[in-house]
Amino acid sequence: MPRIIKLLATLLAILTFWNPMNSNAQEKTAGYGIVIHGGAGGEPDKWTEEYKKQRRDGLKAALDLGLTMLKEGKPGLDVVEQVVRVLEDDATFNAGRGCVLNEAGEHELDAAIMDGSNRACGAVASVRKTKHPISLARRVMTDTQHVLLIGSGADEFGQSLKLEQAGAEYFRTAKQIEAWEKWKKKIPDLTLHRPKAQGDEDEQLYLGTVGCVVLDAKGNLAAATSTGGLMGKRWGRVGDSPIIGAGTFADNATCAVSGTGVGEDFIRNNVASDIAARMRYGSKSLAESAKAVVQTVLPEDCGGVIAIDHRGNIVMEFNTPGMSRAAADSKGRYDVLLGKDN
Amino acid sequence: MPRIIKLLATLLAILTFWNPMNSNAQEKTAGYGIVIHGGAGGEPDKWTEEYKKQRRDGLKAALDLGLTMLKEGKPGLDVVEQVVRVLEDDATFNAGRGCVLNEAGEHELDAAIMDGSNRACGAVASVRKTKHPISLARRVMTDTQHVLLIGSGADEFGQSLKLEQAGAEYFRTAKQIEAWEKWKKKIPDLTLHRPKAQGDEDEQLYLGTVGCVVLDAKGNLAAATSTGGLMGKRWGRVGDSPIIGAGTFADNATCAVSGTGVGEDFIRNNVASDIAARMRYGSKSLAESAKAVVQTVLPEDCGGVIAIDHRGNIVMEFNTPGMSRAAADSKGRYDVLLGKDN
Repeated sequence: MPRIIKLLATLLAILTFWNPMNSNAQEKTAGYGIVIHGGAGGEPDKWTEEYKKQRRDGLKAALDLGLTMLKEGKPGLDVVEQVVRVLEDDATFNAGRGCVLNEAGEHELDAAIMDGSNRACGAVASVRKTKHPISLARRVMTDTQHVLLIGSGADEFGQSLKLEQAGAEYFRTAKQIEAWEKWKKKIPDLTLHRPKAQGDEDEQLYLGTVGCVVLDAKGNLAAATSTGGLMGKRWGRVGDSPIIGAGTFADNATCAVSGTGVGEDFIRNNVASDIAARMRYGSKSLAESAKAVVQTVLPEDCGGVIAIDHRGNIVMEFNTPGMSRAAADSKGRYDVLLGKDN
Repeated sequence: MPRIIKLLATLLAILTFWNPMNSNAQEKTAGYGIVIHGGAGGEPDKWTEEYKKQRRDGLKAALDLGLTMLKEGKPGLDVVEQVVRVLEDDATFNAGRGCVLNEAGEHELDAAIMDGSNRACGAVASVRKTKHPISLARRVMTDTQHVLLIGSGADEFGQSLKLEQAGAEYFRTAKQIEAWEKWKKKIPDLTLHRPKAQGDEDEQLYLGTVGCVVLDAKGNLAAATSTGGLMGKRWGRVGDSPIIGAGTFADNATCAVSGTGVGEDFIRNNVASDIAARMRYGSKSLAESAKAVVQTVLPEDCGGVIAIDHRGNIVMEFNTPGMSRAAADSKGRYDVLLGKDN
């Protein structure tokens, strides 16, 4: 009897792998691809045309750089780092320059990067002096045996490597100082933080994290995420961006993921690694996995993810009114989007 | 044809759930259970009898408290917090008092707690003033909408709640100051950290994190982990203990896990959530999942995990010479162990 069960189990295992329902109908099998996001906050339908153009231009510039690098055969890890640096430099997005400010009106930056070929990864949280937190995260990965460095220690590590430094006058833009001043007046009780604040400043409160995931020409996946976190955050609050498996993840065996939204929900639900686990152990496609996690596991109006798998399938899944995002691949796809369909 | 495939797939799904090979042979179905660990560092065979007794006594005291609370029907979350507090107070273990010291000879403490019934969680990293980091982590979970607070901000949050404070004279024991002085002399090049240091101070370098996982009488799972991290750590290095899904995880649907070892490997491999994912999506037992992750995913001599599932199955899996650990349950199990079998 046990032998029959064993035979049956083997047969089942084979059939499960063969089952055509478990694979994505639009499966791609070669080439390179890139997806980027600039946050899932705000309601794009209510944005001015000027603001929409600004965001689309920012995404497009980052996408074009990434696409050029991929065409040249550059490693995915270099691509995600350079693309995120462009978004960090762009004050339109909540990462690097132009980041939202914490309770004290200061900047505190988080970032993470991961190499899908060997699961090497690096992350930093609450850095204040390093101009490009994503590059600092990469050096944590390559120049230490650690994964996560935080606070002034992380900045000191960057200084020891002579990474470019920057001060408050660089990171804090007039627009963000103004948004912070409004926020400060509006939220009298700071005892409890609301991840979701009400009112017309929403788009300033949730400008959104930036991220990039890539499948390079050699078939390697990479992911990078960078953020200023939550407007008015206090007590050294850290979100999901620098948490490997929550807001950032890459593994050649499955996919590369970068998330944006209410970081706490991404952490407690292991969003990025859950998507990978559903593919790996549940034999689901990337699209099915990302949809299940974003649309059924995460609370409503929480955020979204960008992801790409080892076959070049691209996913941009969110449960908010919009997610600033862009995607391109070697098959000629080229999209820059803000709202549900535009 | 597609209808036949659909039918086959449904049949397969049913058979997969029925397949007796997928369930643990010694499956338990009721009652409560508790597992604790006090680190996977050092070689127990080389320890003095006195040191072994000291560690066994510490584990036993923590286990007895947890067992009594479980018998009384206390919630699992209260049990893991109180048990970890006992281990934090015990200078034998690398958490709270008696923790290892960072490069500067200072203490920096990390902790996390997670409620399996709703995936609520709280964590703190690099705190220096709060006497019981695990209780601070719990208050992050219950008194904020955040998951992770770090550095002086986390301590300020604890002070605002009037949690008990402590200074260097409390945390830094003579034994740890001595170990740190030896370490300082021995490692001239601090540029790169070796997670694994050589020599006879190994047991002091890797005294080990503490943790507790519980299935309570109501069927709820909970996990808690607390640590002083890595001897001589610098640049605000944070390991896996406060990272939900890496060193700490609990979900009633699968299991509760607490890890100990080279934190970086636990983070990049999402150790705790990977064990849960193999159960949830791969229909593996807790024992199979934990064994696969610890023995095949993690590098050799890296660390271990304690875990308990929603049926009360207990796992203590490690790939080091030993892991200080203890387990007890409502069926009368009562074990306190240090090495492979003793």
